[in-house]
Amino acid sequence: MKIVVIGGGSSYTPELVEGIILRADQINVEKIVFVDIESGKEKLEIIGALAKRMIKKSELSIQVDLTFNRIEAITDADFVLTQFRVGGLDARANDERIPLTYDVIGQETVGPGGFAKALRTIPVILDLCKEIENYASDAWLINFTNPAGMVTEAVHKYTSVKAIGLCNVPINMKEMTANILAVDREAVTMSFAGLNHLVYATNVTVNGVDQMPTLIEGIAEGRNMNMRNIHDAPWEKDFLLALKALPCPYHRYYYMMDEMLVEEKQAALEGGTRAEQVKEIERALFEVYKNPALKEKPKELEERGGALYSEAAISLIASIVSDDDAIHTVNVPNNGAISNLPDDVVVEVTCTVNQSGAKPIRIGPLPPELNGLIQQIKAFEVLTIEAAVTGSKEKALLALTMNPFVPSSKVAKALLEDLLEANKPYLPQFFNKECS
Amino acid sequence: MKIVVIGGGSSYTPELVEGIILRADQINVEKIVFVDIESGKEKLEIIGALAKRMIKKSELSIQVDLTFNRIEAITDADFVLTQFRVGGLDARANDERIPLTYDVIGQETVGPGGFAKALRTIPVILDLCKEIENYASDAWLINFTNPAGMVTEAVHKYTSVKAIGLCNVPINMKEMTANILAVDREAVTMSFAGLNHLVYATNVTVNGVDQMPTLIEGIAEGRNMNMRNIHDAPWEKDFLLALKALPCPYHRYYYMMDEMLVEEKQAALEGGTRAEQVKEIERALFEVYKNPALKEKPKELEERGGALYSEAAISLIASIVSDDDAIHTVNVPNNGAISNLPDDVVVEVTCTVNQSGAKPIRIGPLPPELNGLIQQIKAFEVLTIEAAVTGSKEKALLALTMNPFVPSSKVAKALLEDLLEANKPYLPQFFNKECS
Amino acid sequence: MKIVVIGGGSSYTPELVEGIILRADQINVEKIVFVDIESGKEKLEIIGALAKRMIKKSELSIQVDLTFNRIEAITDADFVLTQFRVGGLDARANDERIPLTYDVIGQETVGPGGFAKALRTIPVILDLCKEIENYASDAWLINFTNPAGMVTEAVHKYTSVKAIGLCNVPINMKEMTANILAVDREAVTMSFAGLNHLVYATNVTVNGVDQMPTLIEGIAEGRNMNMRNIHDAPWEKDFLLALKALPCPYHRYYYMMDEMLVEEKQAALEGGTRAEQVKEIERALFEVYKNPALKEKPKELEERGGALYSEAAISLIASIVSDDDAIHTVNVPNNGAISNLPDDVVVEVTCTVNQSGAKPIRIGPLPPELNGLIQQIKAFEVLTIEAAVTGSKEKALLALTMNPFVPSSKVAKALLEDLLEANKPYLPQFFNKECS
Amino acid sequence: MKIVVIGGGSSYTPELVEGIILRADQINVEKIVFVDIESGKEKLEIIGALAKRMIKKSELSIQVDLTFNRIEAITDADFVLTQFRVGGLDARANDERIPLTYDVIGQETVGPGGFAKALRTIPVILDLCKEIENYASDAWLINFTNPAGMVTEAVHKYTSVKAIGLCNVPINMKEMTANILAVDREAVTMSFAGLNHLVYATNVTVNGVDQMPTLIEGIAEGRNMNMRNIHDAPWEKDFLLALKALPCPYHRYYYMMDEMLVEEKQAALEGGTRAEQVKEIERALFEVYKNPALKEKPKELEERGGALYSEAAISLIASIVSDDDAIHTVNVPNNGAISNLPDDVVVEVTCTVNQSGAKPIRIGPLPPELNGLIQQIKAFEVLTIEAAVTGSKEKALLALTMNPFVPSSKVAKALLEDLLEANKPYLPQFFNKECS
Repeated sequence: MKIVVIGGGSSYTPELVEGIILRADQINVEKIVFVDIESGKEKLEIIGALAKRMIKKSELSIQVDLTFNRIEAITDADFVLTQFRVGGLDARANDERIPLTYDVIGQETVGPGGFAKALRTIPVILDLCKEIENYASDAWLINFTNPAGMVTEAVHKYTSVKAIGLCNVPINMKEMTANILAVDREAVTMSFAGLNHLVYATNVTVNGVDQMPTLIEGIAEGRNMNMRNIHDAPWEKDFLLALKALPCPYHRYYYMMDEMLVEEKQAALEGGTRAEQVKEIERALFEVYKNPALKEKPKELEERGGALYSEAAISLIASIVSDDDAIHTVNVPNNGAISNLPDDVVVEVTCTVNQSGAKPIRIGPLPPELNGLIQQIKAFEVLTIEAAVTGSKEKALLALTMNPFVPSSKVAKALLEDLLEANKPYLPQFFNKECS
Repeated sequence: MKIVVIGGGSSYTPELVEGIILRADQINVEKIVFVDIESGKEKLEIIGALAKRMIKKSELSIQVDLTFNRIEAITDADFVLTQFRVGGLDARANDERIPLTYDVIGQETVGPGGFAKALRTIPVILDLCKEIENYASDAWLINFTNPAGMVTEAVHKYTSVKAIGLCNVPINMKEMTANILAVDREAVTMSFAGLNHLVYATNVTVNGVDQMPTLIEGIAEGRNMNMRNIHDAPWEKDFLLALKALPCPYHRYYYMMDEMLVEEKQAALEGGTRAEQVKEIERALFEVYKNPALKEKPKELEERGGALYSEAAISLIASIVSDDDAIHTVNVPNNGAISNLPDDVVVEVTCTVNQSGAKPIRIGPLPPELNGLIQQIKAFEVLTIEAAVTGSKEKALLALTMNPFVPSSKVAKALLEDLLEANKPYLPQFFNKECS
Repeated sequence: MKIVVIGGGSSYTPELVEGIILRADQINVEKIVFVDIESGKEKLEIIGALAKRMIKKSELSIQVDLTFNRIEAITDADFVLTQFRVGGLDARANDERIPLTYDVIGQETVGPGGFAKALRTIPVILDLCKEIENYASDAWLINFTNPAGMVTEAVHKYTSVKAIGLCNVPINMKEMTANILAVDREAVTMSFAGLNHLVYATNVTVNGVDQMPTLIEGIAEGRNMNMRNIHDAPWEKDFLLALKALPCPYHRYYYMMDEMLVEEKQAALEGGTRAEQVKEIERALFEVYKNPALKEKPKELEERGGALYSEAAISLIASIVSDDDAIHTVNVPNNGAISNLPDDVVVEVTCTVNQSGAKPIRIGPLPPELNGLIQQIKAFEVLTIEAAVTGSKEKALLALTMNPFVPSSKVAKALLEDLLEANKPYLPQFFNKECS
Repeated sequence: MKIVVIGGGSSYTPELVEGIILRADQINVEKIVFVDIESGKEKLEIIGALAKRMIKKSELSIQVDLTFNRIEAITDADFVLTQFRVGGLDARANDERIPLTYDVIGQETVGPGGFAKALRTIPVILDLCKEIENYASDAWLINFTNPAGMVTEAVHKYTSVKAIGLCNVPINMKEMTANILAVDREAVTMSFAGLNHLVYATNVTVNGVDQMPTLIEGIAEGRNMNMRNIHDAPWEKDFLLALKALPCPYHRYYYMMDEMLVEEKQAALEGGTRAEQVKEIERALFEVYKNPALKEKPKELEERGGALYSEAAISLIASIVSDDDAIHTVNVPNNGAISNLPDDVVVEVTCTVNQSGAKPIRIGPLPPELNGLIQQIKAFEVLTIEAAVTGSKEKALLALTMNPFVPSSKVAKALLEDLLEANKPYLPQFFNKECS
């Protein structure tokens, strides 16, 4: 089995390598190829060397290759994992800072920041998919690149590649739920429905007994239900009790928009935005990775976020390979799972997974208290994807206007101009129209 | 034919009387009954006297009755027109002012103001409908009471009364379109789709030729496309061009939320909110109405807003009576007209009208740029109606949280407490639960 | 020696009693009279009983009297201590909440909250001073009632009473400075200059060596320099280094206005304003005080704020009595101490104290970085005092307009109307003008 | 008599030339020299050619010279007029836009925009003054360059040049007052006191009768009391009545900070900031100036603002030349005129002017309602000047923190970094410290 990692020089890669080693009994990997762009050479080599040391220590016989030649890497791949970041952390810092100048939350995945990231990323993944269609048409694309929902939807709408979008939010929500309920993660049964970074746990049981009220009680008492990269604003208990569902940590941006905006502005004034903090964390991480004595995933990686990311990824691959019909929460086309949404949009839902892919477990109609926001965001996503593919400023303006963080079409227009200008090198679809 | 007007003491009533007189050839009214509550006695009598003078001058033989006995009035009615305002302008002033203390637009029909108004109004209209079911089960209910969409939906969901909700926004949009295009209103063909105070003209033609671009050009140049009671913030041209549909004047609250909030706050600081201005206008109007020499609708009434309201109402009644299958834009159950929405929610759409009522002309799916907002607001409406009927604070909190003017569930909760407290006398469903 | 405490039923009183007991060697008190208003009877009796138990345990022979008869109490007093709160905590809650509805920090001592408190308090203290002039013309008035600076200035401008205003901020700043520098409080020499709740430490030495840089370094590292009742927003280090002076904890409201406003709004949404929290703390404290087994100041009192308050008060009285020329930082008429300010305004400065009172140690001109803000606030104070005495709405409007938390004269006017209305029972000077 | 105009290529220059022609009986100019920098060559030549055509038409024998050689120009000058703009309109656009990204009013003369302009301008004028000291030590410097108060104060504090700062605000206030009172401007007597762009008319009489109440009434009714470049927010009548003085148009930024900020943000979103509008006006003006048939000041110049600027300037020069002791309101050292301010700061006050210069008419102490704001702004100015001269980031940070538009020291620091970075080419005192 051959696994190709696009964006192999990412600081997250050691997490993935560890997962492959730990699950060696379930997935029999022969070769891992790390691909990156030439400007990422130094990081790629550090990661490659560490991966080789980790595998050597594990006494497995897995070959590790490093390359800038994407086509060569992809050819005959079984799995292509995408975790690249177009424009790097500098672009992310722009995604976060520029909207703040209009009193708008940036947020790199769900707000205007995620919008800009989608515009940069979708053309790149579609190019990659053309290569997969040509050189590895049976390969599975497992996409981690954010905004993972929109990126995966673009792949499904515009290519024939077999793609699943994956995020570590649902698995972490389950893990934190288990902690709050003081049971093992395996003992918890949870159903998820929604969109990437906008997913709700609609049902939580342990041994068939509804645990949602206990869980909400625990959260209201301050038990942790958050990701490391999100300001930990406390939830309003009465709201959760009324909702009768558990919002994901990113829902804070929608349900506490005022607090989150204030926090982002304060952070930008004081310690820098998240991108700027991450830059520093990454710099330090690569220092650690360089150490030739290091032969395992260092504990410092946990600072970086991304907990359980490898667990989610490798177990998903294992289900495809072993055809075990196990349950995973992933991003796939709706195909009737949520009956208020069209078939062709990508949703994040509980699925059974086997060698033919991920099939959503039917949910039916969402109640209005969930449906209102999900419809709004899905409309934003559909328009963003269309803008990213066509370079249409009209679609882009419509998308931004309907993002809930943006207070008006006038702000949307000014912000769009600024975002396009700041991302010019990455947006040929908007700027080189005569060439396309 | 017997027409009953609930809230007959309204300052708008002379408009209605004029319409009945002008259309006497199409609708043969024998009796008009004006009903009001006892505290509105003085206004009711002023209106009644003016109506009698107007009819006398017209030389028609229409009987005018005034009463506080609603059941007596309704019995054997053919049409029941509802234009009452629970709590009067003082309640409206609260609807507008209280949200501003949280930096939230109040707005008496579409924001938290409209939410509070729905909570006060829906129990009253459902009581009325029980009486109609018992004493005039064949009567048509024509509802003007705002929020007209939610009120009409409550009637359809909880009673068997034949009801149509009516608003003067679509007819005014058509009139202003005709002015901008410099043609007669009859020459303009327009299709409308959406919700009350959230309706879009999706199509505008004159003699079969698409006039949307010309219309948008005109609006961008500053031609009037607004109602008297809405701050006339200018539209962003590129946004309208991208939307390819014409938003209604109330859409400013959504697409220019920042500007509208600032304007409402400034108005509250300076000249008073809209409710406070209207109080003064009404006081002056009733002075004019009192004049025994006045025998027609005075021109001062136009100041009050409500242009073409009578035109819309009387022509709708005429279509029902004459079974003419004419086109009207009204609020009726969706029944598949907009395919992204459930059947049982009320929408504001172009219909054909005959003696069996109003049938929507099928629209199909709304494009995402319209659907996102409409779904969000409809979810807010469905939850508000449920809260109004059941007195559920949970549903009320969910509704307010998802209103786009409300930035967080914490603000929603504090605002809900304040709104419930301020409206206590009108909200038995929330406060007298043990009695219901 | 006879000490009279106006507002004797305050929860702070046990602190004071403890101080009198601990310093019995320095001040020989024969009688303490606690005065309060009739509606405070229950609290007064609880405090009185606790005070008697404390004194009994100390084996001192001090007589404790309780009375509602202020004149009787004052007659022949040596010291009159004022710590009353006109309107109680309900009025304070209004002071804090009403301004927030205009996006204005309320703050009970330095903002529009302090403005409203001054309007309520100054007429009461001037009435008291008339009684002192008549019945105890040699008595010293030691005023703790906030806003202590304005209240003390009113006494000096409008009466002949010998008055000193006292606040626990300077002594606490010195205590915290000692902690940061890791020396005893006695080892620290600090000079203070400014206004009440707007005082700067302009000089900090230990054994003659300047410690300001070390102190600022410590604060920038997060060492505590705050009072219990103020949100602990961190100081901007570069700003402190540039200022070369130590602002008091209340300066956060001016130098971090954005953060403090956000925090006050969030607190009002979540757990209640400070007044609402204090109500709960007080309720609990009085439960503790009631316990007949309690014979000393309970440690729970520290929760309430007010640390070192008794230390400051009793040592000040001791200096007057013993004529020791000791150094105290108190509120007295400027009389040339700060040369940029007029003689007759009250300032908070380092003084020598003896039996003729407190004499400021000359400071000279303040540098522009301190003078700008102090002049602005002093102008606000002078106008507020004039409004409080005369009931002039014009002076009140000018005062509020120039408060730095108020963004415009329009907000000032609307806020003034609301504050006057909410405080109507306490503002005869504004509402009963014909009677005065 | 030789007049030198530094920044001669300014679009305002034709106004000045017209003034010299119209007052040729009072001031006998032999030579005018227009100086500019080389990058302004085209504009300088257009202006020069127009000036020559204007003078030729007037049949006066005044020589017009154009040069880039400042020293040559200055040598033996009688009057040096400064109206240059360091960094041009691009720098002004930055001054206006950058603060808005922090929700701070920019404003090119009184806010952080004026702060940045002062940092750019003061080093240049001090260089010029060194040349005047050396080559024309008897010349008068008449400074129009904004921020005129700070620039003039820097000249007085750091050079021996005889300098007067001039602004067209007082003369326009008088003109508008005359219009409102319906009398000739000569009939109005007004006293002014304050700072540049922060000046109050403290007294208005016609034939010895106080007209302040009538004037305020007129302004409250909407009569014009504004400059062309300031958003015309209406004054709060009760505030003006309480103030008993007439604020200048720029005071809107302080007394209506909320409205003005909103308006600046809206303008930046829609039509561009004032700088961006002025760029377009200037472009059009120079097209008009080029026309060889044009031989007079074109009426289009009035669009540009600057009304009565030439009238103020030439009449001031005439008073110096003719030694007539006439009354002018100009910027000069305080020297005791306003007794709350130090002697060495520049104030804008009513003066008598003769050949020894401008002598303030004594005002005495300002009342607190004027003094609070003036002290605050003067402190900001003193620190800004010191920062501009020394390149001290500490002084710059203190200055910005105390500007009333800046809500916190954290915003001040971030904004300072951005302003310094954007103005780097013009701020050698901050960036080339090793060279100075």
